[in-house]
Amino acid sequence: MKSVYVLGPFVGAVSLAGLSAVQANDDVLQRQANPAEQVLQTVDYANTRYSKLDQINAGNVKKLRAAWTFSTGVLRGHEGSPLVVGNMMYVHTPFPNIVYALDLDKDGVIVWKYEPKQDPNVIPVMCCDTVNRGLAYADGAVILHQADTTVVSLDAKSGKVNWSVVNGDPKKGETNTATVMPVKDKVIVGIAGGEFGVQCHVTAYDLKTGKRVWRGYSVGPDEQLIMDPEKTTSLGKPVSKDSSIRTWEGDQWKTGGACTWGWFSYDPKLDLMYYGSGNPSTWNPVQRPGDNKWSMTIWARNPDTGMAKWVYQMTPHDEWDYDGINEMILTDQTIDGRERTLLTHFDRNGFAYTLDRATGELLVAEKYDPAVNWASKVDMDKGSKTYGRPLLVERYSTEQNGEDTNSKGICPASLGSKDQQPAAFSPRTGLFYVPGNHVCMDYEPFRVSYTPGQPYVGATLAMYPAPNSHGGMGQLTAWDNLKGKIVWSNPEQFSVWSGVLATAGDVVFYGTLEGYLKAVDAKTGKELYKFKTPSGIIGNVMTYQHKGKQYIGILSGVGGWAGIGLAAGLTDPNAGLGAVGGYTALSQYTNLGGQLTVFSLPE
Amino acid sequence: MKSVYVLGPFVGAVSLAGLSAVQANDDVLQRQANPAEQVLQTVDYANTRYSKLDQINAGNVKKLRAAWTFSTGVLRGHEGSPLVVGNMMYVHTPFPNIVYALDLDKDGVIVWKYEPKQDPNVIPVMCCDTVNRGLAYADGAVILHQADTTVVSLDAKSGKVNWSVVNGDPKKGETNTATVMPVKDKVIVGIAGGEFGVQCHVTAYDLKTGKRVWRGYSVGPDEQLIMDPEKTTSLGKPVSKDSSIRTWEGDQWKTGGACTWGWFSYDPKLDLMYYGSGNPSTWNPVQRPGDNKWSMTIWARNPDTGMAKWVYQMTPHDEWDYDGINEMILTDQTIDGRERTLLTHFDRNGFAYTLDRATGELLVAEKYDPAVNWASKVDMDKGSKTYGRPLLVERYSTEQNGEDTNSKGICPASLGSKDQQPAAFSPRTGLFYVPGNHVCMDYEPFRVSYTPGQPYVGATLAMYPAPNSHGGMGQLTAWDNLKGKIVWSNPEQFSVWSGVLATAGDVVFYGTLEGYLKAVDAKTGKELYKFKTPSGIIGNVMTYQHKGKQYIGILSGVGGWAGIGLAAGLTDPNAGLGAVGGYTALSQYTNLGGQLTVFSLPE
Repeated sequence: MKSVYVLGPFVGAVSLAGLSAVQANDDVLQRQANPAEQVLQTVDYANTRYSKLDQINAGNVKKLRAAWTFSTGVLRGHEGSPLVVGNMMYVHTPFPNIVYALDLDKDGVIVWKYEPKQDPNVIPVMCCDTVNRGLAYADGAVILHQADTTVVSLDAKSGKVNWSVVNGDPKKGETNTATVMPVKDKVIVGIAGGEFGVQCHVTAYDLKTGKRVWRGYSVGPDEQLIMDPEKTTSLGKPVSKDSSIRTWEGDQWKTGGACTWGWFSYDPKLDLMYYGSGNPSTWNPVQRPGDNKWSMTIWARNPDTGMAKWVYQMTPHDEWDYDGINEMILTDQTIDGRERTLLTHFDRNGFAYTLDRATGELLVAEKYDPAVNWASKVDMDKGSKTYGRPLLVERYSTEQNGEDTNSKGICPASLGSKDQQPAAFSPRTGLFYVPGNHVCMDYEPFRVSYTPGQPYVGATLAMYPAPNSHGGMGQLTAWDNLKGKIVWSNPEQFSVWSGVLATAGDVVFYGTLEGYLKAVDAKTGKELYKFKTPSGIIGNVMTYQHKGKQYIGILSGVGGWAGIGLAAGLTDPNAGLGAVGGYTALSQYTNLGGQLTVFSLPE
Repeated sequence: MKSVYVLGPFVGAVSLAGLSAVQANDDVLQRQANPAEQVLQTVDYANTRYSKLDQINAGNVKKLRAAWTFSTGVLRGHEGSPLVVGNMMYVHTPFPNIVYALDLDKDGVIVWKYEPKQDPNVIPVMCCDTVNRGLAYADGAVILHQADTTVVSLDAKSGKVNWSVVNGDPKKGETNTATVMPVKDKVIVGIAGGEFGVQCHVTAYDLKTGKRVWRGYSVGPDEQLIMDPEKTTSLGKPVSKDSSIRTWEGDQWKTGGACTWGWFSYDPKLDLMYYGSGNPSTWNPVQRPGDNKWSMTIWARNPDTGMAKWVYQMTPHDEWDYDGINEMILTDQTIDGRERTLLTHFDRNGFAYTLDRATGELLVAEKYDPAVNWASKVDMDKGSKTYGRPLLVERYSTEQNGEDTNSKGICPASLGSKDQQPAAFSPRTGLFYVPGNHVCMDYEPFRVSYTPGQPYVGATLAMYPAPNSHGGMGQLTAWDNLKGKIVWSNPEQFSVWSGVLATAGDVVFYGTLEGYLKAVDAKTGKELYKFKTPSGIIGNVMTYQHKGKQYIGILSGVGGWAGIGLAAGLTDPNAGLGAVGGYTALSQYTNLGGQLTVFSLPE
């Protein structure tokens, strides 16, 4: 297979001509085309996390130095990154979800601060730390999705509330950790609660007013799913009537999870948005027979109507909590002389999927972590009955081993070969840069009954480094999405729980749980620079340009699922769904914090 | 007056020969003579805060860059500084007073952590934030004095408790914010509680066992004071019998305050230790007639017996809360051809005092902030009845204006022209570098009754920038202690609440409440470098050398009295004894935090 890498339409010199105001959000599109700014957590609609800025490059990055810093005043896990619009930087925090507007012309003076009033009882309902993956900017507004599911539009200049709307009910286990995606005249939001039996959904609100436009569920009747049995396809075929509820026993879909706490992508040309749905509830597979559609699924929807164009379920009938919510990275790449509109997705289940995003056609599905053992492969035989499904390895099937049996040595652990921490794609190398975990688990499902607002997990876990370890519990991997092959992989002592940034300077940046910001050569992976920030990094590296100078920004603040032991002060090794025991050594390297460090080259 | 500056005996090339083990703590003396290490918060026994390290100098300091950072995991005010002994760094935090031992050979990996269990009810008993001014090192032990007054000796290698002893009772308002001074075979500790009517004292414990050796009170009968009416002198004359209780009405001395939460100095040659005592309780002067001796006093004591050698009361019958606890800086300087053993002290009351530390003879007493208006001068006429006393300005006398009368426009405010933030002395320039406040107040005393453990303040305050302001609420001032004159003074927007460091590189370092670490030229005050750390700085700049390279370290973490509004989330302008209203603008510049930033020159 001969492959030529070209810039995707949203990362490079794309012409926006012909896109009318109703077709796409002009402001967001224009600003994401300007690498001086960052208006989306995902850097661009394509989720490439690639910046055209190249002042800082592989040759000079070793001279990088901290330029200024900012304490958020909040401890616990800091996911996401700041945004930059003009001379303003917008910084968010974990619960209580404070938003700061900083003036970059004045060394980060605080122009305004927005601190929502939230019931602290939302905290115990959040499964894996009180993180928030950040703000989005569109049309002069900064949009915050709070832990308690309140979506707030703030005037970017004054911090005054334009509107706010409540998306869910924490008393039923509905919470939020995700960012939102402004697209056209709407803002797209998801919801969390897969450990509480929430029937999850994606909702579009009017960007100007906050009025609800549509809501599409992940599980339930076709009407709730906004799915056309004849026109919505899966692996090229119509899904047919009641494709979801036919794969659940009785009413179990009503507490079926399949949450939507990950990232959103958008292709303005195809006018389709993409995201993944999470685990079916409970985590005890014996208790919920069937494929549990459309949990663990990649979704393509029309953003105006919510109508599902296609779906692809990666992990039917999940037995391991391999949430499918990780980001969908959209690239246009040439395969065998034909330019294709691709979607690449590094799933928690350890497989990296390459699909045609126009049709949902499955092109590649390969393991991106050699430790993965729960399935031998994904069946790529189009003629096979199990086409597109993972071929399970019996001994690691927690369903087959049954309730109250401890299935040992399953790889990856529930937190996946990669979790929400987003990968990056450089059109200059054609490589994807994947922050990852190298962690296995023992998993023991048990029977659980549903009570609204109470944990509905039904499994006990223990996590630990993968055997025959390559030197740690994580790595940064360069991935070829056309061949389905690892190009290089740098081991790290702990999971790389930080979002990666690739730049036109051929530098790839990421953070480590110990707190290092690292820069490596995009071609070779060679480490070029590192700096120990105050706290462990689970934030996403970002870059911007101010007064002609390129800066790199990163939020420190250890936490998230991997750091939940430190973040929440837990010591029982089985707590944090097994993560506490797996990451105990982390406390030797870092402490809770909440800081932004901004780097630049010396004058 | 011709003056020649020479190195004091403890800061320079002093010969330690002839000092026997019982005469001084060899370990502490030897280590403080090695500028690679820092074993005392005060840098040396003389409290000069001067380092002989000169790799970083006035010529190259502009190239300084953050080398590594460390989050303490604790918010609120971070006073004091880390210590460095060998390859180990010891970092403390505010309440809950965690101690971290970091390995400098391994990028600050945490070797051990000690977290005391303290009743959080101590927090409301701490008058002005939950700060702690840090650890001391001696003979293989790290000594921590907790907020709840527990003094703990920790094995420096393992963090295991050697011994611990309780110095006071928070239920009676007795708390601690200060560091300790190990001297010879003892450790000297003070106590706080001047806002709770505590009868305060200094106590010596055995360094090896924690056994109490002596305790000398600030107010009370001679026996409790460890004072010899015939041999203890004040301004050259014996104090005479019952010198303290004769200056109080009835039993009021029993709730008389005069606390000891500042710094300790020691002169091994004279074998005398020095410190200041704080305000008499209550803050309502009408309620406690008399001079209230020996509050507001500089003390010289024998560290083995506690016996007071001399005392000097700076502010008899305090009417403004001008605590006398600021540091005593010991220098040997030549005046008119005669080498004298000097003690220089920048008092909260706005006067800088130079005394002969052998005898307590008063040599110089001049205002070091031009705003000071409560007294016209200190009477220096040895023949006068008021010799050594401040000459009051009637309109600013809160006693004369009386209870329930708001005395307006008093300068300085209660937090003084300088508070605990320690000054530095460079023997190379002969100048003192004084971090200061430029703040005035309105002060209204009111009647209050004493209840153990309850606030016993009796005054309402409002603080605000000094009128005809020089550009801010604070400054760094270079002071000539022999002439009693300002050499230069750099204004700052807010109080300089950070301890200063002077180095042999002719650089003076300090931090600002907005969070800048600044470096200025020791001769001219010209700003050479600044860096915005994550949070406001109230910590003390320190330096050390590791593997041949000089580093600068500073704790960020806004708080302390000036930052109490931010630190404790207070909004009533009169809260924090008036500081909240005075420093409201600070919230535009920084947030709570707790970080160490370590700087070095690039390779």
